[in-house]
Amino acid sequence: MRNQPYLSFNLSLGNSGRRPSAEQLIESIAGQLRGHSLAPGCRLPPVRVLAHQLGLSKNTVQRAYDELMARGLVESRKRVGLFLAAPQKEVVAAPRKQVSAPAFKAEPPRPVSTSSKVNWAERPIVLSGVSIDPELLPTEKFAACMRSVLKDRIVNLAEYPDAQGFFHLRKKIAQRLNRRGIPARPEEIVTTLGSQQCLDLVCRALADKKVATENPAYHVGKALFEMNDIELAGLPLNPFQGGVDLEEWERLIRRIRPGLLYLVTRFQNPTGYSYSTGELNRIIDWSHDYGFGILEDDWGSEMLSFSEFRPALRARGGDNVLYMNSFTKKLLPSLRLGYLVGNEQTTPALVRSKSLSVLSTPLVIEAAVFEFLDRGYYDVHLKQLHAELDQRYQLCLKVLRQTMPEGVKWTTPGGGPVLWLEVPGRASLHAIIERLARKNIVLWTCEWAFFGKPHLHGFRINYARLAPPDLQRGLEELAGEIRRELG
Amino acid sequence: MRNQPYLSFNLSLGNSGRRPSAEQLIESIAGQLRGHSLAPGCRLPPVRVLAHQLGLSKNTVQRAYDELMARGLVESRKRVGLFLAAPQKEVVAAPRKQVSAPAFKAEPPRPVSTSSKVNWAERPIVLSGVSIDPELLPTEKFAACMRSVLKDRIVNLAEYPDAQGFFHLRKKIAQRLNRRGIPARPEEIVTTLGSQQCLDLVCRALADKKVATENPAYHVGKALFEMNDIELAGLPLNPFQGGVDLEEWERLIRRIRPGLLYLVTRFQNPTGYSYSTGELNRIIDWSHDYGFGILEDDWGSEMLSFSEFRPALRARGGDNVLYMNSFTKKLLPSLRLGYLVGNEQTTPALVRSKSLSVLSTPLVIEAAVFEFLDRGYYDVHLKQLHAELDQRYQLCLKVLRQTMPEGVKWTTPGGGPVLWLEVPGRASLHAIIERLARKNIVLWTCEWAFFGKPHLHGFRINYARLAPPDLQRGLEELAGEIRRELG
Repeated sequence: MRNQPYLSFNLSLGNSGRRPSAEQLIESIAGQLRGHSLAPGCRLPPVRVLAHQLGLSKNTVQRAYDELMARGLVESRKRVGLFLAAPQKEVVAAPRKQVSAPAFKAEPPRPVSTSSKVNWAERPIVLSGVSIDPELLPTEKFAACMRSVLKDRIVNLAEYPDAQGFFHLRKKIAQRLNRRGIPARPEEIVTTLGSQQCLDLVCRALADKKVATENPAYHVGKALFEMNDIELAGLPLNPFQGGVDLEEWERLIRRIRPGLLYLVTRFQNPTGYSYSTGELNRIIDWSHDYGFGILEDDWGSEMLSFSEFRPALRARGGDNVLYMNSFTKKLLPSLRLGYLVGNEQTTPALVRSKSLSVLSTPLVIEAAVFEFLDRGYYDVHLKQLHAELDQRYQLCLKVLRQTMPEGVKWTTPGGGPVLWLEVPGRASLHAIIERLARKNIVLWTCEWAFFGKPHLHGFRINYARLAPPDLQRGLEELAGEIRRELG
Repeated sequence: MRNQPYLSFNLSLGNSGRRPSAEQLIESIAGQLRGHSLAPGCRLPPVRVLAHQLGLSKNTVQRAYDELMARGLVESRKRVGLFLAAPQKEVVAAPRKQVSAPAFKAEPPRPVSTSSKVNWAERPIVLSGVSIDPELLPTEKFAACMRSVLKDRIVNLAEYPDAQGFFHLRKKIAQRLNRRGIPARPEEIVTTLGSQQCLDLVCRALADKKVATENPAYHVGKALFEMNDIELAGLPLNPFQGGVDLEEWERLIRRIRPGLLYLVTRFQNPTGYSYSTGELNRIIDWSHDYGFGILEDDWGSEMLSFSEFRPALRARGGDNVLYMNSFTKKLLPSLRLGYLVGNEQTTPALVRSKSLSVLSTPLVIEAAVFEFLDRGYYDVHLKQLHAELDQRYQLCLKVLRQTMPEGVKWTTPGGGPVLWLEVPGRASLHAIIERLARKNIVLWTCEWAFFGKPHLHGFRINYARLAPPDLQRGLEELAGEIRRELG
C-alpha cells in the first residue's frame, strides 16, 4: 500500500487553515483535479489521510468525496480506494519520463600510481601508506569511554550540538597544546571531521583564494584545494638539498603573493622533512613582510618519542598562525576527529565555515574522546605507542642501512609515520612497483603530490603500519628490486 | 621541559640516512648552526633526542657535541642542557614577531530576526524552530545499540571507514526507500553529516554553478550555496496563491538556465507547502526540456502519520533525481547522520566530493544507527513519534482556528515539523516579536529565506518541539499580540 503514489493536491480553501464548509472542500478538490493535466487513474489520498492533514473529521471528507463521485470526477474501486475517473484500467499514474541528470564535473585524470596486480584479499604488505597499525590502537579503552558517556548521560544526544565542538574537549586540547608551548584557548578551537575538514574550513573562509604549499604536497589536501577552486602554487622542498631553498621561496612568494601558506612544518608528508629553526624564522619574517597567513599542519605529532621537541610555528609566530591536528591516526581513524586553532580574530570565520558546511560534528564522539583524555588513557596509550613505533622506526633505519644499494638515500624524520626513500634516477619506479606487486608488496609513486614534473624520484615509506617482520621483509624485497634495477 | 623550544636543524649528512662518521656529524651540525641567523641562546636537542632521530648511539652524538663545545660553538649549562654559545643570559630564543593573520571573508550582514530581550536561561517557549521535542527521541534505545556495536565489535574502529558510508546501513536505507516506492540501491547511497552536508557535496560536484530553489528557501541551505559561490535564484512559492506559479517558474527557468533545481517537495521549509502531483509533473517535463538536474530534499518525512502518501519526485521522475534525507531530526540531532541517493552515473562524483572534503564520516555512529534500524527500534519509535506529533499538530490547528483574528491564514501541511502563519500586512512582525519576548516567547522572522523583499508576511510555526501546554500558551499569546497589532 505505502508505495502506491497517491495524488498530491493542495487545497486553497477560501479561508486558509480554517475549517472549510463541505462546499468549499468539494470545490477546492474539484478545482485541483481539473486544474492540472493529471493522468486518469491517479489514486486519491484516503479519507483518513486528508482528514488528518486538514484537521477535519473523516465524515466531512467522506461527504466531499461522495459528492465528487456523484459528479463523476472520481470513482471508487472496491477495497482499493478512490481514483480519478477514467476509462483506463491502470491503477497508478503513468510513469513519467526520466528527468535529466545533473551535470557534474568530470574527475580530473590521475596518473596510475600503483600496480593492478596486487591481491588485496591476501593482506598485502603495504609499504607506502600513512596510517598506524590498527593493532596498536586502543579500541577497547575507547569503547569503555563511549559506554560511560552513554551511561552517565554526559551529553544530551537529542539536541543539536555546539557548532564549535564539545567545550570540555576543546579545553583538554588547549591544555595539551599549552604544555607543548603552543598558545591555544578553548574559545579559539573548532573541532572538525579529521584534518581534511580543517583544510576545507580554512579554504572556505579565505578571502584571497591563493594558497602556496610544499612541493611535493600532502596530495589529498592538494586535491581538496583544487576542488575548492583555490589557485595553488608549490614551493619546492628537497630534503636532500638543504630542505627549503630560501631564495627560491622568497622569489616565488613575491611573485605569487599568496593569501595563505599551508605548511606541514614537522614530518612533512610525503618527505618526512622538518623545518629547521632558521627556516621557520624566515617564514615568520616573510609573513610579516608579505602579509600572508599561515596554516600549520601538525599531523605527524605524538607518534615517536622525542618528536615534540621541534618547535611549532604557532609557538614561535604567535596565535595568528592557524594550527591543525587530528586524533585520527593516533587514536582511532574511524572517529574522524580533528581540530583547528585560530584566535579571537579568525575563529569566528572558521566556526561559520563549519556551521554552514555541516552544522556541527557528532557530539557523542567528542564526549567519548574527552573522557579518553580525562581518564589519562591517551597519555598511557601514547607511551605504549611510542615504545612500539620507536622500535619500528629504528628497525626501518637499520634495514635500510643494511640492505639498500649505493646511491639510495632516505630522510630520518624522527617523528610522524613516514620517511622518503630516494632512488637513483636510472631505476624505474614503476618497474620496481610491478615486480613487488607479484610478491604482494604494495608501493606507490607520489606524482600526485608534485606540481609538474617531480624533482624527487622515490617512494614514501611507512614504518608505523606494518608489524616488524613484515616491515623487514618488505624493505628487504624493495632493496633487492632496486638493486636489480640498478644492475 | 617539554615546552622549551629546542633548536630544530636538519643534518645533510654526506650519505643521507646512513650512519655518519663523527666528523660528518660535527661538520653538519656546525654548518647548520652557522648557516642560519639563529639567536644565541637557542637550546640544542638533547643527546638522546638526536640519537633517536638519527638512529645513532648516544655515544656518537655525545662525542660530536663534545667537539662542538671544544670549538666554542655551543656551551653547556649545568642540569639544563646545551645552548648556542653567546654572551646573553636568555635560555630560549627571543620570541619572534607575530605573523600576519590570514585574510578571511567578512560575514555577510544579516537582518536581525528575533528579539535580544529573550531570557534563554529561563527556557523560553520557542515557536519558530524546526526540531522535534528531545523528550520524544529515543536516547536510551540508541545508547543500547551503540553499546552492542562496541561489545560485538561489529566494525573495526581502528581502520579508515569506507568513504561512501557503512554498507549495511546503506542497504537498510535502500530497503526503506523502496518500501515508499523510491528507487534506491545501496551502491547509489552516500552517507553524510546531516542534510547540510548533502547540499554541500552536491554543490561541489556541480559543473554548472547555477542553482534555483524556492523563494522562500531553506535559509541555512541558501547561505551554504552562497558560501560555495553558487549563483542562486529564487522561484516564488506562495502557498496561499496556488503554490507554484507555473508560468512564472517556466519563464525564470528559461531565463536563468539553472544546472540544478534544489526543491523541498514536501513540507517545505519554511512554508510547509507540498507540491501537487500536477506541479511535480510539470517540473519533470521541464527537467527534460531544459536539461537541469533535480535535488529533492525530503527532510520533513516520517514525522506525522500519513505524511508519506505524497509521492517523491524521485519516485515519479526516476533515479536521475538526487534525493536527500536525514536521521537528524527524527532520530537524534547530535548524531548528524544524513544521506544522499544518486545513481550509477552521479554517485561517484558525490563520493569523490565527500572523500575530498572529509575523507569519511564516523563509522561507529553509522553502525549504531544500522543496529537501531535492524532491531526494528526505528519503526517502533516512529509509531510513537507519530502518535505524539499528530496530537500536537491537531492541537496547533485547533488553537489557531479558535484564537487567530480574522485575516490571519496558515498552511495545513500534514507532515514535517512546521507550518507558515501569514499575518495581515498592517501588523508589524517585529512589534509582535518584541512584545512576546517580554513573556519569554520566541519567534523570528524569515527574511533570510527570501530573495529580495519577502512576498509573505508572517512566521514559521513549529508544532513538533513544544509540549502541548507550552504550544497552546505560545499560540494563544501570539494570537493576542496579532489582535493587538491589528487594533
